[in-house]
Amino acid sequence: MKKYIAEMIGTMVLVLMGCGTAVSLSCTSADPSLAATVIGTAIAFGLAVVAMAYTIGEISGCHINPAITLSCLLSGRINVKDATMYMIFQVIGAVLGSAILWLLTDNSGLTGTGANCCQEGVSILGGLIAEIAFTFVFVLVVLGTTDAEKGAGKFAGLAIGLSLILVHLACIRYTGTSVNPARSIGPALFQGGEALSQLWIFIIGPFIGAILSAIVWRVIAGKK
Amino acid sequence: MKKYIAEMIGTMVLVLMGCGTAVSLSCTSADPSLAATVIGTAIAFGLAVVAMAYTIGEISGCHINPAITLSCLLSGRINVKDATMYMIFQVIGAVLGSAILWLLTDNSGLTGTGANCCQEGVSILGGLIAEIAFTFVFVLVVLGTTDAEKGAGKFAGLAIGLSLILVHLACIRYTGTSVNPARSIGPALFQGGEALSQLWIFIIGPFIGAILSAIVWRVIAGKK
Amino acid sequence: MKKYIAEMIGTMVLVLMGCGTAVSLSCTSADPSLAATVIGTAIAFGLAVVAMAYTIGEISGCHINPAITLSCLLSGRINVKDATMYMIFQVIGAVLGSAILWLLTDNSGLTGTGANCCQEGVSILGGLIAEIAFTFVFVLVVLGTTDAEKGAGKFAGLAIGLSLILVHLACIRYTGTSVNPARSIGPALFQGGEALSQLWIFIIGPFIGAILSAIVWRVIAGKK
Amino acid sequence: MKKYIAEMIGTMVLVLMGCGTAVSLSCTSADPSLAATVIGTAIAFGLAVVAMAYTIGEISGCHINPAITLSCLLSGRINVKDATMYMIFQVIGAVLGSAILWLLTDNSGLTGTGANCCQEGVSILGGLIAEIAFTFVFVLVVLGTTDAEKGAGKFAGLAIGLSLILVHLACIRYTGTSVNPARSIGPALFQGGEALSQLWIFIIGPFIGAILSAIVWRVIAGKK
Repeated sequence: MKKYIAEMIGTMVLVLMGCGTAVSLSCTSADPSLAATVIGTAIAFGLAVVAMAYTIGEISGCHINPAITLSCLLSGRINVKDATMYMIFQVIGAVLGSAILWLLTDNSGLTGTGANCCQEGVSILGGLIAEIAFTFVFVLVVLGTTDAEKGAGKFAGLAIGLSLILVHLACIRYTGTSVNPARSIGPALFQGGEALSQLWIFIIGPFIGAILSAIVWRVIAGKK
Repeated sequence: MKKYIAEMIGTMVLVLMGCGTAVSLSCTSADPSLAATVIGTAIAFGLAVVAMAYTIGEISGCHINPAITLSCLLSGRINVKDATMYMIFQVIGAVLGSAILWLLTDNSGLTGTGANCCQEGVSILGGLIAEIAFTFVFVLVVLGTTDAEKGAGKFAGLAIGLSLILVHLACIRYTGTSVNPARSIGPALFQGGEALSQLWIFIIGPFIGAILSAIVWRVIAGKK
Repeated sequence: MKKYIAEMIGTMVLVLMGCGTAVSLSCTSADPSLAATVIGTAIAFGLAVVAMAYTIGEISGCHINPAITLSCLLSGRINVKDATMYMIFQVIGAVLGSAILWLLTDNSGLTGTGANCCQEGVSILGGLIAEIAFTFVFVLVVLGTTDAEKGAGKFAGLAIGLSLILVHLACIRYTGTSVNPARSIGPALFQGGEALSQLWIFIIGPFIGAILSAIVWRVIAGKK
Repeated sequence: MKKYIAEMIGTMVLVLMGCGTAVSLSCTSADPSLAATVIGTAIAFGLAVVAMAYTIGEISGCHINPAITLSCLLSGRINVKDATMYMIFQVIGAVLGSAILWLLTDNSGLTGTGANCCQEGVSILGGLIAEIAFTFVFVLVVLGTTDAEKGAGKFAGLAIGLSLILVHLACIRYTGTSVNPARSIGPALFQGGEALSQLWIFIIGPFIGAILSAIVWRVIAGKK
C-alpha cells in the first residue's frame, strides 16, 4: 500500500509543480520573445521528476506516469495487479495536484490549469505524432537508464528528469507536452472544454510511444 | 560549535547569493516578458543549496533552514538543543547575508533586499497556502533523499538543491518564495514595511509545511 | 549489430530533440532580446547527449557523432571496422531524426530543420574556425572524461552533455553549432540551399577539431 | 610539466567558452529584459569548470584560477613551486583563450572580449566588495568540496562548477564577474582602456576573497 501512496504523492507533486510553474510563468509556446516561459516550465517538469525519483524511488520506483508503468509491464518489470494500482493512484495524485493548484490560483487572482491541448496551428494528427514521438524518447530513457544490467544506477533519476526537461523544450510548441496520461487527466478535469475533448490524444499518444519504446529497447538491449 | 558556525555561514551564503541574484536581475514575477529574471533567481537559490550541501554537509548536515531543522527534530534526527542552536545560528547567518548584500548595493547604486511578500493580486491566504504547499514539497524531498535507509546517498545534495529551483519557479509568483523562515527574516529587517508586517506568513507557513512533510514521510516510509 | 542500431537510435534522438527544439523555440542567434531561444536550444542538445549517454552508453559507448568516433579511432579505442559502421549508422540515424521532425512540422504549420550555416556577418573562415575550436573543446572533454585511467567514471555522461550545452551557448552565434557531421547532414538534406552548399564546413571543421583533441589529450595524459 | 600544460589548456577553455559566450549573447547586466543574456553567460562559465574538472581533474586538480591556487597554497595542499607554475600557466592559457576568441570575432563581424570592469553605477569600492565577497563564496566551495576528509568526492567538480554559475548570476551586475585573476588578465590585454586600468580590482579582490576562504574553512573544518 505504501508504494501506491508514494505514486500518488509523486504524481501530485509533478502536477502541482509542473503545471503550477506553467501557470506562474504564463507559459506561451508560439512567441519566441516569451521562450523563457517555455524553458522555465520545461525545467520545472524535469526537476519535479528528479526530486521525486530520489525521494520515493526506493519505495515505488517512482513511475508517476501510466505510460512508464505500461512500458515496465510490457518489459516484465512489474505485475498486472501492481501496474493497475499504480495507474489508479497516479491519476488520483494528478487530480489532487490540480486541486491544490486550483486552491492556490483561486486565492491569488490567477487562472489556468496547465492542461494539454494542440497549440496554435498544430493539427490533431500533429499533436498525436508529437506525443507518440516524444513519449517514445522519454520512455526509452527510462527503460535504458533503469535497466538492471545496462542501466545508469544512481544516475538514472537525474538522467530521466533531465530528459523530461528535454522533451518539454521540444514538445511544448505542439501540445504543451503530456507524455503522461495522468498529468493530462488532472488539469483537464478542472479546465474542461478543449482540454477534455482532446484528452484522448494524451492517453493514446503516450501509450503508443511507450509500447514502441518497450519494443526498441528489447531490440537493442536484448540477450540474443 | 563548529557545526553551528557552519549553519551560520551556509545560511549567510544562501541569503547573499539567492536574494543577491533577485536584486541583480531585478526579479519580477507578474510579467511573462521578464520570466528570465524569475528563472535566474530560482537557479541561484537552488544552486546555493547545492554548493553548501557539498561544502558543509559533512559538518552540520547543511540544514540552513529552520523548517528543515524542525522536520528533522520531528523525525528524531536531531535533538532539541542542537535544533534550537541551529535555528539561532541560521537566523544570525541570514542577517549577516542581508548585511553584506546591503553593503554591496549601497556601493553600487542598487536597491532591494530580496524580501518576501505577497505578490500582485495574491491574498494573505493565497500566500499562506503557497508557503505551506511548496514547503511541504521541498521538505519532503529533504526527508526522503537524506533518509538513512531509503535515501539518495551522495545525490541528496543535488536533488535537494534542484528541488529548491523547482519550488522557486512555481512559487515566486505568489510570495517571492520563502519556504525558509531565516531567509525571510534577514531581508525583512533591512526592508521593513510590508516585508516585516507579513513576516509571520513566512514563519508560520514553512513550519506548517514542514510538519506535514514529517507526517507524510512517516506514512510512506515507515517500517510497519 | 545491436551497438550499431544503438548509435542510429541515439543520433536520431539527438537530431530530433536538438534540432526539434531549435525549430520549436525559433532559435535566433543575433538578437540579444531572443537569447532565451539560444539557451533553450543549447540545453536541448546537451541534455539529449546526457539522456542517450546513460541509455545506450553500456551498449555502444554512445558516440552518436562521427567526430567523436574519429577521435576514438585515433586514440586506439575503437577499430576501423566498427568506426566505419558507427559513422554510417550515425548518419542514417540523423536522417531518420530529421525525417520525423519534418513529419511533425509538416502537420503543425511549422517550418525549419535546424540545419547549420554561417550566421549573420560570419565569414566561411569564421565558421570554420568556430567549428574547429569548439569541436576541439567538446571532443577533449569526451576523451578526458572517458579515459580508462584518468576519466570521470559514471560522471562522464553528465560532463559530456553539459559540455555540449556550453559549446552551443558559445557557438550558435557563429554557425548554429554542428561539432558533429551527422547532426549537420540530416537537416541539410531536408533544407537544401545554403545548408547543403556549406555542408563541407560542418564535416571538415569537426574532423579537424577532433584530430587536434586526440593530439592534445595524448600530450597531457600520455604515459611518459 | 603535463599538469602545468593541463592548467594552461583548462584556463584557455574557461576563457574561450565563458568570455566567448558573453560575446555571443551580448551579455548585458543592467537591463532586466536582457536577463537571459546574463543567465546564458553564467551557465557557460560554470559548465566550462564542470567540463574541465572532469577532464583534467586527475591530471592537475583543475585549479584554472590563481585565487584557487592561492587558497590551496595557504591550506597546505600545494607547494610554492607548483603554485607559482600553476599561476603562470593559467595566465598563459587565459591569454591564449582570448587570442582564439579574437580570431573568431575578427572573422565574424563581432566585437567584445568579455573583459571585466565595474558596471553601470557600480563604484570602485562596490566592485572590490563584490569580487571579495563572491570569490570568498566560490573558493569556500572549492576548499570544502575537495577536502580530503569532509569533501564531496566525485561530486566536487559538479558542485564547484554549479557554484560558479551561482556566483555569476549574482555578480555580473557588479563587475561582470571575475573571481579569477587569470580570467580577467587575458581579455584585458585585448580590450585595453578601462579593462586594463581596473585590472588591479580583479587581481586584488579575488586574492583577498581566497585568503578569507582559507581562514573560514580552517575554522569550521579544523581538527581541534
